[in-house]
Amino acid sequence: MIKVGIVGGTGYTGVELLRLLAQHPQAELVAITSRKEAGMPVADMFPSLRGRVTLTFCELAAAKLERCDVVFFATPHGVAMSDARRLVDAGVRLIDLAADFRLRDLAEWKRWYRLDHAAPELVTEAVYGLPETNRAAIKTARIVGNPGCYATAVQLGLLPLVESETVDLDHLIADAKSGVSGAGRKTELNLLYSEAADNFAAYNVAGHRHMPEVREQLARIAGRPIGVLFVPHLTPMVRGIHATLYARITREADFQSLYEKRFRGEPFVDVMPPGRHPDTRSVRASNACRLAVHRPGDGDTLVVLSVIDNLVKGASGQAVQNMNIMFGIDETAGLAQLPVLP
Amino acid sequence: MIKVGIVGGTGYTGVELLRLLAQHPQAELVAITSRKEAGMPVADMFPSLRGRVTLTFCELAAAKLERCDVVFFATPHGVAMSDARRLVDAGVRLIDLAADFRLRDLAEWKRWYRLDHAAPELVTEAVYGLPETNRAAIKTARIVGNPGCYATAVQLGLLPLVESETVDLDHLIADAKSGVSGAGRKTELNLLYSEAADNFAAYNVAGHRHMPEVREQLARIAGRPIGVLFVPHLTPMVRGIHATLYARITREADFQSLYEKRFRGEPFVDVMPPGRHPDTRSVRASNACRLAVHRPGDGDTLVVLSVIDNLVKGASGQAVQNMNIMFGIDETAGLAQLPVLP
Amino acid sequence: MIKVGIVGGTGYTGVELLRLLAQHPQAELVAITSRKEAGMPVADMFPSLRGRVTLTFCELAAAKLERCDVVFFATPHGVAMSDARRLVDAGVRLIDLAADFRLRDLAEWKRWYRLDHAAPELVTEAVYGLPETNRAAIKTARIVGNPGCYATAVQLGLLPLVESETVDLDHLIADAKSGVSGAGRKTELNLLYSEAADNFAAYNVAGHRHMPEVREQLARIAGRPIGVLFVPHLTPMVRGIHATLYARITREADFQSLYEKRFRGEPFVDVMPPGRHPDTRSVRASNACRLAVHRPGDGDTLVVLSVIDNLVKGASGQAVQNMNIMFGIDETAGLAQLPVLP
Amino acid sequence: MIKVGIVGGTGYTGVELLRLLAQHPQAELVAITSRKEAGMPVADMFPSLRGRVTLTFCELAAAKLERCDVVFFATPHGVAMSDARRLVDAGVRLIDLAADFRLRDLAEWKRWYRLDHAAPELVTEAVYGLPETNRAAIKTARIVGNPGCYATAVQLGLLPLVESETVDLDHLIADAKSGVSGAGRKTELNLLYSEAADNFAAYNVAGHRHMPEVREQLARIAGRPIGVLFVPHLTPMVRGIHATLYARITREADFQSLYEKRFRGEPFVDVMPPGRHPDTRSVRASNACRLAVHRPGDGDTLVVLSVIDNLVKGASGQAVQNMNIMFGIDETAGLAQLPVLP
Repeated sequence: MIKVGIVGGTGYTGVELLRLLAQHPQAELVAITSRKEAGMPVADMFPSLRGRVTLTFCELAAAKLERCDVVFFATPHGVAMSDARRLVDAGVRLIDLAADFRLRDLAEWKRWYRLDHAAPELVTEAVYGLPETNRAAIKTARIVGNPGCYATAVQLGLLPLVESETVDLDHLIADAKSGVSGAGRKTELNLLYSEAADNFAAYNVAGHRHMPEVREQLARIAGRPIGVLFVPHLTPMVRGIHATLYARITREADFQSLYEKRFRGEPFVDVMPPGRHPDTRSVRASNACRLAVHRPGDGDTLVVLSVIDNLVKGASGQAVQNMNIMFGIDETAGLAQLPVLP
Repeated sequence: MIKVGIVGGTGYTGVELLRLLAQHPQAELVAITSRKEAGMPVADMFPSLRGRVTLTFCELAAAKLERCDVVFFATPHGVAMSDARRLVDAGVRLIDLAADFRLRDLAEWKRWYRLDHAAPELVTEAVYGLPETNRAAIKTARIVGNPGCYATAVQLGLLPLVESETVDLDHLIADAKSGVSGAGRKTELNLLYSEAADNFAAYNVAGHRHMPEVREQLARIAGRPIGVLFVPHLTPMVRGIHATLYARITREADFQSLYEKRFRGEPFVDVMPPGRHPDTRSVRASNACRLAVHRPGDGDTLVVLSVIDNLVKGASGQAVQNMNIMFGIDETAGLAQLPVLP
Repeated sequence: MIKVGIVGGTGYTGVELLRLLAQHPQAELVAITSRKEAGMPVADMFPSLRGRVTLTFCELAAAKLERCDVVFFATPHGVAMSDARRLVDAGVRLIDLAADFRLRDLAEWKRWYRLDHAAPELVTEAVYGLPETNRAAIKTARIVGNPGCYATAVQLGLLPLVESETVDLDHLIADAKSGVSGAGRKTELNLLYSEAADNFAAYNVAGHRHMPEVREQLARIAGRPIGVLFVPHLTPMVRGIHATLYARITREADFQSLYEKRFRGEPFVDVMPPGRHPDTRSVRASNACRLAVHRPGDGDTLVVLSVIDNLVKGASGQAVQNMNIMFGIDETAGLAQLPVLP
Repeated sequence: MIKVGIVGGTGYTGVELLRLLAQHPQAELVAITSRKEAGMPVADMFPSLRGRVTLTFCELAAAKLERCDVVFFATPHGVAMSDARRLVDAGVRLIDLAADFRLRDLAEWKRWYRLDHAAPELVTEAVYGLPETNRAAIKTARIVGNPGCYATAVQLGLLPLVESETVDLDHLIADAKSGVSGAGRKTELNLLYSEAADNFAAYNVAGHRHMPEVREQLARIAGRPIGVLFVPHLTPMVRGIHATLYARITREADFQSLYEKRFRGEPFVDVMPPGRHPDTRSVRASNACRLAVHRPGDGDTLVVLSVIDNLVKGASGQAVQNMNIMFGIDETAGLAQLPVLP
């Protein structure tokens, strides 16, 4: 059994990790920390786990994370980087669900996260945890920076186009819509039910933190800079991201088959048949990403639809997928649950 | 492997059966029927099942249900009773998720369902499929009438009181609230998103079909008639039933411990600690029922809160639980998924 | 024009007052205060008011509320009582949307609100602002304590029964369901979209602050103590309260006609025809209360359904109705907007 | 008073017309038709109108629409065109909320609506009812084709760019999100609460009926063909459209001021200050359109955000606005209600 610790278990990615890991056949939860809730049984905070998770939140110091094989950081940005060195030196592998190890470019990181990075030397060795592009490196990584939720949906949707250089890579457009849980379990006014329900709005049109990692990763793959205009929107649902991607065709190709080939064998990416429109609930509570490729009016612009559950493939599920890869077990272990529909 | 057939797989209880059975370690789906959709792959209608369920809907005649060990009827009322005799004679066991085998009293059945019963002799042998009261009989049943969703939430909440005769059994009140999926996948005006969202209303205050079975079952247990006033409400959520139950105390007891004792060992009934308020999402997509017992102001009236997922413990999950009991396998097989929260 | 001030305009009752008063033909908004937002134009916080409300939030001291004819307190409990004396002495009339002037019984008030009352002598003269029972006293009141939202729905639903003494007044049951805006614009975890959506739960079953005022008022009317068991629930919608009221009949009467007679002439109470089930959206954004009276199975228990919009008849609309009465103008002035459906 | 008739009053645009016209100071509802509901009082179907609308649905023949000054068609496509000739000849003016008079190009009309047009000669004289571009022609029109909801949001958002020819008019992108009421009060599976709630999906990516009218109108204004790629999405809310518009800049301009100038004096179009993100609820239940202009990273692509309430500015409110213009009364009469928020 893989011994697992979780730092920061009271947010949505934390409780989702608990849900997935408690059902994982080869993982054993040994510690979960929370500064504020130390001493409270996990199942008191999340009754959905009653009778199934018997752990109690504890202080970081008391957690003895060194005895873990792997530690997940389900914390705000800036926490994992402070503890990483100590854990890595103790032989613990680390998966950060926040942004501390997503970006190689530290100046860019500082620009978006407004902090000096505490462990720049670890950034160099950290691996960006998108299995569909980085599987080999993840296998041996000591530190995995788990991708952002938007970043996952957008990259999976654009990947075949970037790799094949069949579209204008300077003017990609990603119009993305996220359920509210994507913003975290934070007491902010705009996340209140009475603010977010029966409402729809864009936000951060001027710039969003998930785009630097998309640009960095896609540029790495393309070997050239990538221009992506990203507009995120908040939509009144709990889980789900829908990215609508626009790309101007520069070189003809059979795009449907391009996508099918690219993702053949990928356990969690489903390219739908032509003409379909994936809905977010078709992946709800599962680690799947569904894609559909459209070319309206046989024109010069492709429209790619990409859906994920922001808490699963967009966060905790992908983190577990990375753990599976890192420990050489079946990549789908603990991730086989079917989507919950309706 | 238990060979399973499903009649009527295009409604919500049908697709929920598919979700549960496709993940069941000891069940094998061999046929699923739909008159209207015959020829369509199941996963075309429900993309959430893509890559996991390869069955195609077929006509009833083509389904060869006689080769099944068990057949689930996820059909409207009145269908199972017509096919039951043929299947039972062929040695197939039958679990009806509709109401054909819920009521012993055929006059009462006719009154509520406006049909003459097509198989009255089978009604006599059929077993009401509430495991918490009928486990032994279910084990050997050829036909199980799976309880209604409201009926499940209400009976589990009232059971300890009825068995202990500690309250006024002539004046029980069940104020119940259901998510919209409880009404089925039917194109009725009041079930439209724009009608049901941001809205709340009672319905059928004059009488609801799920109450005769509650009264019949509780009366059987109590050995006397039971008076339950039932008011159902539609609440804007997809899944979940919350029953708020009121009972006037006639004999003192330690009610918390009464409940804890009654359900000790029950794999799917969770009596919460004093003072808690179970929420429907704490059982979402799981087969759990959570109960809480309150006695406000130490007065003469008990308030019991009972929550289930109407599609799982209120329908398809309970049906699978019944199958597990009938075939002598672990009662929780295929039903161990944790609730999905948030 | 009636000169109006609002203290505490950034919550939901505050913005609803703004919406109603900005459209009121005989009211003129002259000041709105907010400690935190002083200096910010109201329409910057609430873009729905752009071009229609040009006021800027100001400090209480700067508001010069003495020049107002009436001041609404849309503040948390405990604020109005501190400012009341000064304003009343300056000849300003005062409508408190919080609880400072709802209860005559100061011990009870302290028990529920955990404060010593700052103006006990004003409590004595304050009038409980339910026009349907207190219209004459409201007319001349200097201070009106605007009823709680639950309290309004429950009292209007029970009033004819209490006045006619046709039911067991010791064992009334009020099972109430509220939209999330009823909890205010507060950054509390359980009010987050991702917590409250697709979920249903009871809360405060042990006791809720709105019941003492119901008991005090109904007791005053009945001339005897009243027993009401109250169970509030949070339901995933923005606006609306649905109270389902249960009362055991002790004396026969034509209850439908009892209700129709009691509310004949009331501009905002609509008794629906027999057999109907009012839905909350039928009063959305309007000052109406709709009632329906049921007697299931012609039994001994009445079921009364009562719906209001918690922010209008349950708060700001009723406050404006009270203002209209106090200033001798048409009681429906500024309150004639039709409900918004769907 | 303007004598008003409504044909087809049981859908969402019908009941919204009723809500607006019942509160209109210069309109008098004289007849409302419904084939299916003839004989039923309007307020029995829509209790929100109880006590305020006393009309009864009647057959078309019985409605004597000839006595009306104006008739609104809130019917499916294909109805208005059959009755138009008769009414126009009787001197009645006609506003069609469906598509019969939206397109000049009859071949295009037939292609999208799959019918031969019954009154091609009237198409020629009909005026497209977008006041912000066609006010003068609407004034004297006998027939107004009220714009589609998407078409309204998209055109208002693109108008200043098209008129100023500052962007690439061959490659406009409109990524639009609509609340479910936009699909009408139709019993279709995908509009059920349990299908549409907690879900998000694109639809009709291959082509949508509202785009031909956008292209025709914008081309008329630009004097050249316009290329608009349109992707509609269904979002889980009742009311509201949010269009996110992308345009590649071809000629520099101060775009914020371009928008402000273009819509100065327009009573229902609000250009927000730089940096804002309009949300749909800021126009809920009102006739407003709010726009915001962004230029992320000072790059070569503009992002314009445009929100309306699909049932008001996107349908019935705009129809009333057109009526006001046609009859020479205050354009805002009956349309001054503030948005309902939250």
